[in-house]
Formats: sequence, structure tokens, C-alpha cells
Amino acid sequence: MLQKSVQVNQNKINFYFNASFKQLKQLVNVQSTFIITDANVYALHKSAFKNWKTIVIAAGESNKNLATVQLIIEQLIELKADRTATIIGVGGGVVTDITGFVASIYMRGVAFGFVPTTLLAMVDASIGGKNGVDWNLYKNIIGTIRQPSFLLYDTTFLNTLPELEWQNGFAEIIKHACIKNAAMFTMLEKVNPAALKKNKLQLNQLIQKNVQIKMAVVKNDENEKGERKLLNFGHTLGHAIENEYGLSHGHAVAVGVHYAALLSQQILGFKKAEAVSNLLTKFGLPTTFSFNTEKVMQMLQMDKKRQQAEVHYILLEKIGKGVILPIPLKDLEKMYTQLS
Amino acid sequence: MLQKSVQVNQNKINFYFNASFKQLKQLVNVQSTFIITDANVYALHKSAFKNWKTIVIAAGESNKNLATVQLIIEQLIELKADRTATIIGVGGGVVTDITGFVASIYMRGVAFGFVPTTLLAMVDASIGGKNGVDWNLYKNIIGTIRQPSFLLYDTTFLNTLPELEWQNGFAEIIKHACIKNAAMFTMLEKVNPAALKKNKLQLNQLIQKNVQIKMAVVKNDENEKGERKLLNFGHTLGHAIENEYGLSHGHAVAVGVHYAALLSQQILGFKKAEAVSNLLTKFGLPTTFSFNTEKVMQMLQMDKKRQQAEVHYILLEKIGKGVILPIPLKDLEKMYTQLS
Ligand SMILES: NC(=O)c1ccc[n+]([C@@H]2O[C@H](COP(=O)([O-])OP(=O)(O)OC[C@H]3O[C@@H](n4cnc5c(N)ncnc54)[C@H](O)[C@@H]3O)[C@@H](O)[C@H]2O)c1
Ligand SMILES: NC(=O)c1ccc[n+]([C@@H]2O[C@H](COP(=O)([O-])OP(=O)(O)OC[C@H]3O[C@@H](n4cnc5c(N)ncnc54)[C@H](O)[C@@H]3O)[C@@H](O)[C@H]2O)c1
Ligand SMILES: [Zn+2]
Ligand SMILES: [Zn+2]
Repeated sequence: MLQKSVQVNQNKINFYFNASFKQLKQLVNVQSTFIITDANVYALHKSAFKNWKTIVIAAGESNKNLATVQLIIEQLIELKADRTATIIGVGGGVVTDITGFVASIYMRGVAFGFVPTTLLAMVDASIGGKNGVDWNLYKNIIGTIRQPSFLLYDTTFLNTLPELEWQNGFAEIIKHACIKNAAMFTMLEKVNPAALKKNKLQLNQLIQKNVQIKMAVVKNDENEKGERKLLNFGHTLGHAIENEYGLSHGHAVAVGVHYAALLSQQILGFKKAEAVSNLLTKFGLPTTFSFNTEKVMQMLQMDKKRQQAEVHYILLEKIGKGVILPIPLKDLEKMYTQLS
Repeated sequence: MLQKSVQVNQNKINFYFNASFKQLKQLVNVQSTFIITDANVYALHKSAFKNWKTIVIAAGESNKNLATVQLIIEQLIELKADRTATIIGVGGGVVTDITGFVASIYMRGVAFGFVPTTLLAMVDASIGGKNGVDWNLYKNIIGTIRQPSFLLYDTTFLNTLPELEWQNGFAEIIKHACIKNAAMFTMLEKVNPAALKKNKLQLNQLIQKNVQIKMAVVKNDENEKGERKLLNFGHTLGHAIENEYGLSHGHAVAVGVHYAALLSQQILGFKKAEAVSNLLTKFGLPTTFSFNTEKVMQMLQMDKKRQQAEVHYILLEKIGKGVILPIPLKDLEKMYTQLS
């Protein structure tokens, strides 16, 4: 177990990498700890939850809502959780997002930690303090920003992870490499994905590197004023086609990353668009998708983050260096049409 | 309109005393402002809400729950409230508690302000940053701590306030006088309640004084570690009999205040128990209630704030000086029995 601590504003966050879930009982008081997990994780790793007070929610994004929050709170009350409670989310991003939110509002805030069990949650969703739930199609429209006290990483959970969920995680890892870390990009170009998934040492190192990348961005910008926007690389187009065509998040982001690389080539003279596309393909991710430009432009226009007739697009100057550039919606529409 | 600003941690809170609701439009951008009020206030002051986007919730404590929060959020989405929104709660403590909570979680937090319309909300509920909703009998079990950007005081709202609600407010005002301000206690002893309610100048001064008292306590102790506990004066017994016997909050607190004065006499040699009781009576508040000691002790034992076999009771050394004293539950039971 490897411990690292990061300070974000007034909060100290402890990371336990290379850890085993069994070590959790050394970190918290079992009596006053309440675990939240989902039905899939619970079924696949039942023995891990023995001796822990565990609240099991239904799996999947469609259950990331206030009704589930209410169900959890009812059970916390029944289990007599008080202000001294620690709540731990053991699961993918749905579980960690809900857990962070519940812990932020139960008795006006109790301590919480995460044990992410998907690759995406490990490198992305559990990091940064954003939490929340959806209302219908409005993703994460309800939530707070609050940091967990700790995160424990046990990669043996990944032994049961379905292929599609691996892909979702790798899409974000490739995103991180593109915007922030050329060395990691090169490493990913060289590695064999199947071998990497089995090599726990290498996998742990990769996860740790990605946590560092996201934490460094978050630390300087907890409330998403500037640099944190870089993490939206691939997500502008990604979100639009994810919703419109029901793609998985990782697949949508992969297409978004590829298009952003092409736009970077056109606007900034970025030279590595093909390398980006090859890397995505090697990790089983799509790079193109025949979307309806008009529909996508409509989605972008409605995006809650957009305030004017332009989009703050994330582009690449070179591998490892993302930049934010305002692009007028009209120009964007032209470029999308040319590219597709 | 009299403006005062108070800094609590990183938040600057603007107070507008002696103000008119009409002045609200000078303080916010009407287009991006969303008012939350309840059906009673809306019906009694309909014209005030003309030209404002207004969300009306059902009145009363029984609607202070997550279902109402969800209804409000649905309407905010429908009204296209975005991150630049300001949400304003116009109403009693139920409205301000829900409004503060909704504003803390909508899009991970938007700006908010209060226009308290009950005396209790003016001097107590809208001050201090605590917000939230109930789950069944568990009051305020869900919530956050977050300060509003501003509070606007328009005492003409009080023209429609029912007598019982005046009493609820005065109970908290007398509480403040007892624990923090002997001069205000003396002033209240001298004044004629009916005249005070009609004298806007005097009423505004009294409200402002009470806001100062509560803000001073909150400023030093936003998260209720120490001094903020003083505000629970009268509330230990008060809460227990309020729930058990369905008393109004102010009546229950008044009885609690009187008993706390008697305990102060017994334990600390406090000399003014009779003056406290006379003042409560003058403001139409009860001072005694024949409760079942055993039942009350059971309630205290279950209280979520109690962690050991003793209660942190708020007592008076003298008028204007509240202190916190741990009293073993056993001793408390004996004293209650003697006193009742
Ligand atoms: N808070 C943030 O900053 C942030 C960032 C990115 C994503 N997110 C959120 O994260 C969520 C997506 O995360 P996710 O992809 O982990 O989704 P998820 O939690 O739905 O997990 C994906 C699937 O994998 C299952 N699963 C989890 N662990 C498993 C394991 N070890 N073995 C087998 N199956 C397992 C889950 O039950 C689920 O069916 C979204 O709701 C998204 O909004 C949040
Ligand atoms: N956040 C805090 O620190 C804090 C402190 C004290 C109390 N509270 C909360 O405040 C609530 C009690 O506040 P309250 O007594 O204002 O309750 P309330 O909001 O229910 O108002 C009492 C009644 O008066 C009506 N009303 C409001 N303004 C009126 C007006 N101008 N004319 C006529 N009728 C009017 C309301 O519709 C309601 O029926 C409780 O939920 C309590 O938990 C919170
Ligand atoms: Zn993503
Ligand atoms: Zn009270």
C-alpha cells in the first residue's frame, strides 16, 4: 500500500494506491462506517462486504437520481448513522458520485471516502470533488463540490470489469495523455493493451499517473474557472453524440477526441492527429461516427455551459499540451461538415 | 434602506434592513432571478410577485422534504435557470431553509438571497447558513451549511402574520435576550407588545439587534463546535415536548426557556427566573406544561446530538450571559421531577 496526500483548499485527501480492500478496516472505524455499493459490484464481490454495514443500490446511470438519494438516506437513518459516520462509496462513477453527494447533505455533511471499482472511476470520476445526480436527461444537474477524505485503490476489482468499461476508462486516460502528458502518450503507444490489463504493477502505475494529472488540474481550479476546462477535451462533441445517439461515454469521447485532434490540425497546425487516432483504435475505441451536424449543433447551442454564440473548445497545440480556444458556432458547423 | 455587511469565512453577506420588497429589483438581475415562496405568502401578497419568475410551494413543515426539493428543481430547469441564476426565498423558515438547500445543490451551487416574512425567519431561521429539509420526524436531517449573499427585510410582510407566528418569533427574541443581551431584555420588559408590533421603527430596530446577536455567534462558530450551542437555550426540553405533545415551536421553546431558568437558579444561583417567566407571559407565551418526565427523558436519550450519558444544557449565569454545562441525564431527570 502506497500512501500519498494532496491538499485541496482546506481539505487533505489521502490516496492509498496498490492497496487491498481488506486494508480498509485499518483506515476507518468499522462500527461507524457505512458502505454504499451497487448491485453488480455487490454480487461479484460479495465476500468483500462481509462485516461491513452495506447499502446496495440498483446499478446504472438511470438510478443516479434523487429517489436513490432518498432511499440511501432512509437506510442511513435506520442504521443509526450519526455525525461521526464515514460513508464509503465502493463502485463505479455512479456510486462515487451519489456517495459524495449523500455525504455532503446527510446531517449537513459527514466524512466520506471512495473505493473506485471501474477504471473510469479510478482515473476520473472519483477524483476532483464534483458529485451529484441527474434529473432526466440533465446530467449532474444536482450536486455539490466536496472532496473525499481518502481514496483506496484495489485493482483486483478490475478482474471482473466488462470490456466496454475498460474502454470507457482508457478513453479518459488517452484524453489525459493528449492534454497533459506526452510521455504517457508514448508509453501507451508502445504497450500491448491485453498485457497491460493483466500487469498489475504497470496498471497501478498508470492509474497513479492519471490520478496525479487530474489532481494537479483540480488543485488549481476546484470550481472550474479555467484550467479544469481542459478536462473537457473530446467532451464537447462527445456529450452531444453520446446523448443523441446513445453511445457509451468512452466511445463518444473517443470520437470527440479524434475530431478535436482534426480541428487542432486545421486551426493550430497540430501534427499528430493520426497518432491519436491510431492509439484510440488500438484500445478498441472508435474514432469516427457519422453524426448529423445540424442535430449536434442544436445540442451545442442548448448546452448549459455555453453563454454566447461561441464554444470554448479544447484543442491540442501538441501532444501533452491542451489549450482552450473560443470557436464561433458558425465556424464550428462548417468544420464539422467538412470533416464528416 | 439600511445596508450592513458581515463577513463569514469567505462569504460576504449583505443585510438590507428597513427595506421595501420593491427595492429587490435594484439588487438582482430580474431576468436571471427565481423566487421561491409558499402558497400562503403568495396568496396574501400576490401583487409583490408580479414581474418575477416565481415558484410557489405548499406551505408548512410537512412540505419541507426532498419531494418539494425535486419539484422546485424541475421548475428551475423548466424556467431555464443556469449557473448565473440567483434564487430568492420569500417566506418563513420553511421557505428559507428549502431555498438555501436548493441553491446549494442546483448545478452544484448558485447564488441565493432571502426575504424573510415571519418574525421567526427574520430573527432566526434565515440567519446562520444552516439549511435543509426533514425526513419524517427527523428535522433538518438533510442539508448543507451555506451563507446567502443577501437578506432583505421588509416588515410590511408582518402585517398579515397570524398571532401564533408572532409568538414563535418573540420566543426566539426572548431567548436571544436571555443568553446575550441584558439591555434588550430590559427593553422588552418595558415595552407594550401590541404597540411594538405596530411601531415599525422600533420593530425594525429590535429585528436588527437580534440579527446582530445571532450573526455574532454564527460568525465565530459557523459549524456549531462551541458558542453556537448557546442558541439552543430553551431548545433541549423544547424540542422534546414540541415533538411529543405537538406544541408550536415557540410555545415549546418558551416552556424550555422557563425550565432552563429554573435549572439555572438551582445549579448556578441565577436570580431572575421570575423575570424571565413574566416576560414570556407578557408576550403571550406559556411557561409551564405538564409533561411526562419519563417520556421526555427517552426523547433526550435518542437525541442525535447527545453522545454520552449527559446533556450539554444551556443555562444562565445572569440575564445576558448563557453558559454551556454538561448535566448527567440522571440528575436532569431528578430536577425535572422536582420542578414539575
Ligand atoms: N464526478 C466526476 O468528476 C465525474 C467524472 C467522470 C464521470 N463521472 C460520472 O461517473 C459515471 C460513470 O462512471 P462509470 O463508468 O464507472 O459508471 P458505473 O458506475 O455505472 O459503472 C459502469 C458499470 O460497471 C459496473 N461495475 C462497477 N465496478 C465493477 C467491477 N469491478 N466489475 C464489474 N462490473 C463493475 C457497474 O455496476 C456498472 O454497471 C457517470 O455517472 C458520470 O457522470 C463523474
Ligand atoms: N436554518 C436555521 O438556522 C433555522 C432556525 C430556526 C428555525 N428554522 C426552521 O424554520 C422553520 C420555522 O420557520 P417559520 O416559523 O417561519 O415557519 P413557516 O415558514 O412554516 O411559516 C409559518 C407560517 O406562516 C406563514 N407565513 C409566512 N409569512 C407570512 C406572512 N407574512 N403573513 C402570513 N403568513 C405568513 C407560512 O405560510 C406558514 O404557514 C422550521 O422549519 C425550522 O426548522 C431554521
Ligand atoms: Zn468523460
Ligand atoms: Zn427555535
